[in-house]
Amino acid sequence: MSPKITTELLKQLRQVMKSPKYVREPVQAYIVPSGDAHQSEYIAPCDCRRAFISGFDGSAGTAIVTEQHAAMWTDGRYFLQAAHQMDNNWTLMKMGLKDTPTQEDWLVSVLPEGSKVGVDPFIIPADQWKRLSKALRSAGHDLVPIKENLVDTIWTDCPQRPCKPLLTLDLSYTGVSWRDKIVALRSKMAERKVLWFVVTALDEVAWLFNLRGSDVEYNPVFFAYAVIGMNTIRLFIDGDRMMDPAVREHLQLDSTLEPEFKIQVMPYGSILSELQAVGASLSPKEKVWLSDKASYALTEAIPKAYRYLTPYTPICIAKAVKNVSETEGMRRAHIKDAVALCELFNWLEKEVVPKGTVTEIIAADKAEEFRSQQKDFVELSFATISSTGPNGAIIHYKPVPETNRTLSVNEIYLLDSGAQYKDGTTDVTRTMHFGTPSAYEKECFTYVLKGHIAVSAAIFPNGTKGHLLDSFARSALWDCGLDYLHGTGHGVGSFLNVHEGPCGISYKTFADEPLEAGMIVSDEPGYYEDGSFGIRIENVVLVIPAETKYNFKNRGSLTFEPLTLVPIQTKMIDVNLLTQKECNWVNDYHQKCREVIGAELERQGRHEALQWLIRETEPLIRVQ
Amino acid sequence: MSPKITTELLKQLRQVMKSPKYVREPVQAYIVPSGDAHQSEYIAPCDCRRAFISGFDGSAGTAIVTEQHAAMWTDGRYFLQAAHQMDNNWTLMKMGLKDTPTQEDWLVSVLPEGSKVGVDPFIIPADQWKRLSKALRSAGHDLVPIKENLVDTIWTDCPQRPCKPLLTLDLSYTGVSWRDKIVALRSKMAERKVLWFVVTALDEVAWLFNLRGSDVEYNPVFFAYAVIGMNTIRLFIDGDRMMDPAVREHLQLDSTLEPEFKIQVMPYGSILSELQAVGASLSPKEKVWLSDKASYALTEAIPKAYRYLTPYTPICIAKAVKNVSETEGMRRAHIKDAVALCELFNWLEKEVVPKGTVTEIIAADKAEEFRSQQKDFVELSFATISSTGPNGAIIHYKPVPETNRTLSVNEIYLLDSGAQYKDGTTDVTRTMHFGTPSAYEKECFTYVLKGHIAVSAAIFPNGTKGHLLDSFARSALWDCGLDYLHGTGHGVGSFLNVHEGPCGISYKTFADEPLEAGMIVSDEPGYYEDGSFGIRIENVVLVIPAETKYNFKNRGSLTFEPLTLVPIQTKMIDVNLLTQKECNWVNDYHQKCREVIGAELERQGRHEALQWLIRETEPLIRVQ
Repeated sequence: MSPKITTELLKQLRQVMKSPKYVREPVQAYIVPSGDAHQSEYIAPCDCRRAFISGFDGSAGTAIVTEQHAAMWTDGRYFLQAAHQMDNNWTLMKMGLKDTPTQEDWLVSVLPEGSKVGVDPFIIPADQWKRLSKALRSAGHDLVPIKENLVDTIWTDCPQRPCKPLLTLDLSYTGVSWRDKIVALRSKMAERKVLWFVVTALDEVAWLFNLRGSDVEYNPVFFAYAVIGMNTIRLFIDGDRMMDPAVREHLQLDSTLEPEFKIQVMPYGSILSELQAVGASLSPKEKVWLSDKASYALTEAIPKAYRYLTPYTPICIAKAVKNVSETEGMRRAHIKDAVALCELFNWLEKEVVPKGTVTEIIAADKAEEFRSQQKDFVELSFATISSTGPNGAIIHYKPVPETNRTLSVNEIYLLDSGAQYKDGTTDVTRTMHFGTPSAYEKECFTYVLKGHIAVSAAIFPNGTKGHLLDSFARSALWDCGLDYLHGTGHGVGSFLNVHEGPCGISYKTFADEPLEAGMIVSDEPGYYEDGSFGIRIENVVLVIPAETKYNFKNRGSLTFEPLTLVPIQTKMIDVNLLTQKECNWVNDYHQKCREVIGAELERQGRHEALQWLIRETEPLIRVQ
Repeated sequence: MSPKITTELLKQLRQVMKSPKYVREPVQAYIVPSGDAHQSEYIAPCDCRRAFISGFDGSAGTAIVTEQHAAMWTDGRYFLQAAHQMDNNWTLMKMGLKDTPTQEDWLVSVLPEGSKVGVDPFIIPADQWKRLSKALRSAGHDLVPIKENLVDTIWTDCPQRPCKPLLTLDLSYTGVSWRDKIVALRSKMAERKVLWFVVTALDEVAWLFNLRGSDVEYNPVFFAYAVIGMNTIRLFIDGDRMMDPAVREHLQLDSTLEPEFKIQVMPYGSILSELQAVGASLSPKEKVWLSDKASYALTEAIPKAYRYLTPYTPICIAKAVKNVSETEGMRRAHIKDAVALCELFNWLEKEVVPKGTVTEIIAADKAEEFRSQQKDFVELSFATISSTGPNGAIIHYKPVPETNRTLSVNEIYLLDSGAQYKDGTTDVTRTMHFGTPSAYEKECFTYVLKGHIAVSAAIFPNGTKGHLLDSFARSALWDCGLDYLHGTGHGVGSFLNVHEGPCGISYKTFADEPLEAGMIVSDEPGYYEDGSFGIRIENVVLVIPAETKYNFKNRGSLTFEPLTLVPIQTKMIDVNLLTQKECNWVNDYHQKCREVIGAELERQGRHEALQWLIRETEPLIRVQ
């Protein structure tokens, strides 16, 4: 992977930063955030402006270009990747390290007095705008919205915004009709005394209308906004997708409906002017509900006194708690996914060990091939992380020809992969060795496993926030002076984004909502040695009620049930480092894999993979 | 404990809330916070306005009186106590429970349109003012500062503000001279480019000048403010205490000093006008540093553009990291404290078991008597919680004649007590049974002990915040569906406040600063059953570097060393619920108690207590 040469691009960007054609006054700095106008984590190619200008294409990062400097802020998952992908024009700002300045501190330190800092108001979330603008103002600078995106002005071959057909999901998948979702949303709006709710996140639009799209790779969403009033529904969406009879039928566009369920379809680009019209029409005490992460542009459309901002929208919270149809769908999806992985690992063992011809890319492609054989497979849920040896230490690695290593019997192999099925979304990481792991590799793997089990088996009171469980995942590593520089888990959508709020398990997330039965998160501690190997063990787990001996204050308790049912390589485990309880957990888990996945492999006639599964789920025996 | 009858008082308060003598316009609600003008947790009798108006005298709570309602917000430690102490005029608002409204939500729900809400601007911290004022304004109400405290106007027998002599601390106690502390503070000020620092917290004034006082019971502080400039030092303090030759000598008030170390002594009451003068004298870009918890009145004295507010002051952070003189002092204080408690517990066993004549108050007094026999004893560090049976479930219980129970062989006894010695501050809780505890009591005690050990023995990377350790203390309880409704630990001062920032161990504290070697916190998980018993095991622990097998990213690791060395009653432990590691921890801890405290008991000729110590520190044996 050679870095992108950005000298010419930066020169051009610095020119437009001063060009009266685009800016009223020259800006001394220009911020290029990761997101799109919906604050999506995964974005369409036309929105990859930060990757275009810098070369760094990880999922999180913010670029700031000044007349002299170009700097990139990203987190621990991406330190190595960003360093590889960016040329010497760029300074890497490692977020989370003590000496790394914040964006505002850095700007204040490098900008000449009274500078203007520009940003696209559609891309920057309102809460970030507020924080940044305040910090800059207090240092004598100004944050200014630049209507035309300056990167777009120099991006001559920028791809078109996608506009692909939609998929309708019936009740057997969603459990709740879009009409009932609208009713529930309006009741939340009535509770908070707001008249309007603006849906800006793509997965929230998709979830609300029980529609799916494919405008963004890996995320089954489509470009749209919605504005829900107490008696009106406006859907802002482009293209002829609304001409599709299935979609018209699903949304009842041609039926005579009660007016409050009649959907008005409007052009995607008209959201700002429509919202400004809503803002202008409000009487005192009438409020409009927006996420505080909605774009600065849309937030500004509503005068301040009329805004009702919350960190999580009622849709985000409702979406996180899966209903029975959704959890059953997720179970089915994970069973199919496990079948594909058993096939893959069985195939890898046969190919890697004697032949040594399998590369990271071949392995990733093979994983996709096996998944695509499963019913209702749609696409992958994220770019497969297929990494061996030192590549495994690059936390969000994606193999490309320049970095593509061959799997061998001498290195640890880490595969983090998942798929979108029509009934659910998967995300699983397994770390394995095709030869004989060293004692040290086994030791590290076992600490990671202990952390994985500590979270998975944790029992905690109703109302507990996920971040309170994060240290459980680290305790065994901490005891030996080890750690990992990423969170432990994220919310997972139901045939939706593989990362979703409002819950998670992280030392960083303080604004998370309490875990509730029905929520689905990942449990994925790891350990990484730069230049050597990476270890991660990830299951997707469902929050379920726990039976406990006592019940303090009648609060009730929760725990997790793994939805992922793929063997954890016992060869990598140093059994003597496990407690008896942990050993039992592994054996119970493997027993369940054998029963549930074994039955499905049998049903699908995949006998060789079944033999592999049975071999890999032999009980551990702990010598006392 | 019968509740205070507040009908007449509330009537009077409601009258002054409308009286033009005190308020420009009538206020429809009046807020009575806990604190004093220094936002102290422990306050002088003249500042106990919330207790005066409501009867509830716990350390935390906010009263709000409207024309129709009177409501009290307090946290889980005080639910029972507040319910006992307040009459029917009051509604208890249980903070931390899901259905409890916030003060602002409640105000909005009960106030007539366009109301005014009054509060004393010297008592309310600026950050709370801001939050509250914003919430009220957005609902059409106004928060207004009422210069004269309305409770004081009806408090006819309000005691005088204390003004007691000062104690000077020499280098052998403090390790650093006040001059060097000023130099270090000014260097922090220079780093942040501020010209002035306003010291508002009483313990910060005391720490900065190496002075102690006794204006507030349990906290060795005195009423004063300080304003530190780059070349000036102003100390705002009343009375003839500055006439004391020892104090004059200590502060070098009569020496010819470099001007930047010359202390100007000014009247306590002149702080506001002096600060307003400072505020008026500032040029653009000149900043004044204040805690964001400083009073609204003082914060407003500095025009907004000139304020530099932080949640923790540089003094708060420096004070938390104890130097060698301070940690050695803390060690000595804890040894003396343990001697007193060994004497007490030995005495209790002799008195309670055969005679049954010891009440909670007698036990508390006896504890104080034994402590007062120790060298450099000053006073208690908080009101002794001496509680038996159901009183133990009242988390911050203080025995009074009406509630005073007799210790018996049938109940669990919980003693949470501590002292101020000239060399350090102690805070220790032990829970014991003088007869035969039930299996259930032992079970609960053992879970609490497991939590205590999990924190005490935790190893964690440098830079970890204390709140990340909180769940370790709860894990064993959670496994059985149990929990406790308070944090796990607080910072402890060095011959200063028994509760101090900026670190702690709590699920609630997200703004805590990372733990550092030299910080001192408490480790005090518990379990409480209303109406039955309370269990808590508390040690004061010092943060120390930990040796680990590996050292990820060269970050280094930390752990805790118990400073408290008082036996944990083994009779209460169900050894079979402990792991071998936990069992070893208890035995190692008891071995250290035996060695260190045994030697001191020997030295002090306290042979009977020594025998008790040896008996109580017999190793546990775990049957495999």
